[in-house]
Amino acid sequence: MTTNKRILLKSRPKGWVTEADFELAEAPMPQPSEGHALVRNHWLSLDPYMRGRMNDTKSYAAKAEIGEVMVGGTVGEIVETRDPTLKKGDFVVGTLGWQEYGAAPAKALRVIDTSAAPAQAYLGVLGMPGVTAWIGLLTIAEPKPGETVVVSAASGAVGSVVGQIAKLKGARAVGIAGGPEKCRYIVEELNFDAGIDYKASSFLKDLESATPKGMDVYFENVGGEILEAVLHRFNPFARMPLCGLVSQYNETKPAGFRNLHVFLINRVKLQGFIVSDKPELWPRALQELASWVASGKIKYRETIAQGLENAPKAFIGMLRGENFGKQLVKLV
Amino acid sequence: MTTNKRILLKSRPKGWVTEADFELAEAPMPQPSEGHALVRNHWLSLDPYMRGRMNDTKSYAAKAEIGEVMVGGTVGEIVETRDPTLKKGDFVVGTLGWQEYGAAPAKALRVIDTSAAPAQAYLGVLGMPGVTAWIGLLTIAEPKPGETVVVSAASGAVGSVVGQIAKLKGARAVGIAGGPEKCRYIVEELNFDAGIDYKASSFLKDLESATPKGMDVYFENVGGEILEAVLHRFNPFARMPLCGLVSQYNETKPAGFRNLHVFLINRVKLQGFIVSDKPELWPRALQELASWVASGKIKYRETIAQGLENAPKAFIGMLRGENFGKQLVKLV
Repeated sequence: MTTNKRILLKSRPKGWVTEADFELAEAPMPQPSEGHALVRNHWLSLDPYMRGRMNDTKSYAAKAEIGEVMVGGTVGEIVETRDPTLKKGDFVVGTLGWQEYGAAPAKALRVIDTSAAPAQAYLGVLGMPGVTAWIGLLTIAEPKPGETVVVSAASGAVGSVVGQIAKLKGARAVGIAGGPEKCRYIVEELNFDAGIDYKASSFLKDLESATPKGMDVYFENVGGEILEAVLHRFNPFARMPLCGLVSQYNETKPAGFRNLHVFLINRVKLQGFIVSDKPELWPRALQELASWVASGKIKYRETIAQGLENAPKAFIGMLRGENFGKQLVKLV
Repeated sequence: MTTNKRILLKSRPKGWVTEADFELAEAPMPQPSEGHALVRNHWLSLDPYMRGRMNDTKSYAAKAEIGEVMVGGTVGEIVETRDPTLKKGDFVVGTLGWQEYGAAPAKALRVIDTSAAPAQAYLGVLGMPGVTAWIGLLTIAEPKPGETVVVSAASGAVGSVVGQIAKLKGARAVGIAGGPEKCRYIVEELNFDAGIDYKASSFLKDLESATPKGMDVYFENVGGEILEAVLHRFNPFARMPLCGLVSQYNETKPAGFRNLHVFLINRVKLQGFIVSDKPELWPRALQELASWVASGKIKYRETIAQGLENAPKAFIGMLRGENFGKQLVKLV
């Protein structure tokens, strides 16, 4: 094989991203230089933050460039190495983007143990989304036993871990998700205390019933109308880790919220955060997550799209909430 | 004298408070019981938070009751005492409300040193507003030398202290105030680096010019359109102590803000706070403030209304921003 299939960013979406904003193209096989390795990607991670990378705006990370490969986390197998710390056959996590093969410096590739967990788990519960949940919940929200933790996008890669860690810490876990199936899943399989369907007409009433002692933590992944709805449940001294606003990423006129007053009278802390700001916490977080997964205390689910060419469609579906748990693309 | 003039809350305002929501009435002179003292109020403090006390809503403090004396901080002189810790002639700070005389338990009255500062200063820079500025800026925002601190209602009792402490800590202080006179005052007399008039058509441009390195701290007293405007100046890891939302207190439909996304991409911390939550910090804050005032490092200005009957009008004027510095009512 001498060519490498890739998905390129073709145009910057205005409003909702479409499949036409991407382009499937072939390029010569990458050649690893000294200290680098060539990786065959087995799995692509699809995550909401990638929508922000498609915009031409300043953010905490470099944007994707038009005509370049779409960015994203990957798990793959070393097929050629020019660095002594890596050997052929090693499985590694990297950020090689939406392509079949990628070359990267050895220090940008982390070897994973595929005997401890399936390779793709390192893109989910044992990777960036899992660590995001761990850092946001345990270092910003710091839930105490008996407190109530509400999380939006609760069946997703981050939200599902947030609720399960909250339970492990003795808190009440309430998840907000779209549709009865996801709500049943987080309660029956993930041990949440309640699952609330934001699409149901009884949403506001259900939210109130599920938080009889109010809300001490709101872990925010979505923004928009759900945020507006939950604000009135805040208890004094509540904490709100702001992890994502997926409902807004494709909106040209962003929604905020009106009732800022509740942050004042309840002395609420809102804290935006990005998981890559805290590299020093990753080893401890990953160790704890791995031990919880190994002992069955944290469970997860995956939605798998087959083939590179289906990545754009799966990505758009994820932004619409059509996935269930971690959204992946399987290449091999 | 056997009667006591008082201003009662007559009705709960819907929207803007009016003078008709208050009532001047006479009552028998209060009789202090054992362990209490009778105080002749010399000064009433008028503060934005009192507007919230007029509503029939749950908040962090008890609301004012219809037909009862309007709540608020006071400075006065002990005229009769039934507690050994207080003596006749002592000046005390209390929360006796809008009336000529009030009786209170000795432990709710704090003796002040009127040789160190004028009595009414203990309702402003050496009282609740000063401590509010100190706690919000130094324990939530924690500005570092060279950072930019922006404060709204910058010529007011809290804002003026925020900017001056920011300067003492080596930060750049930018104040937002209404009208050129207040903006000149905070720069020329209070040593702010810039004063921006939010009523000027050039407000947005002026804000940008005054924050060439962005904004690391936004100390919020007003909310509404000013908040919406400043959000785009946030630097990464900025802090926003949320102290007040005076522009919204008389609005029936509160304004929030749209662009919550800036809190996410810049990892901003927003923290609502109430000065009375931190009684353990008051002694240190008051000591530092007193030393800064004594050495001329912190200056302040007062707007004084004469006579109890003018308290409602002065209160409404303050909510409209007509005051300049701390709004007081002089009774004696």
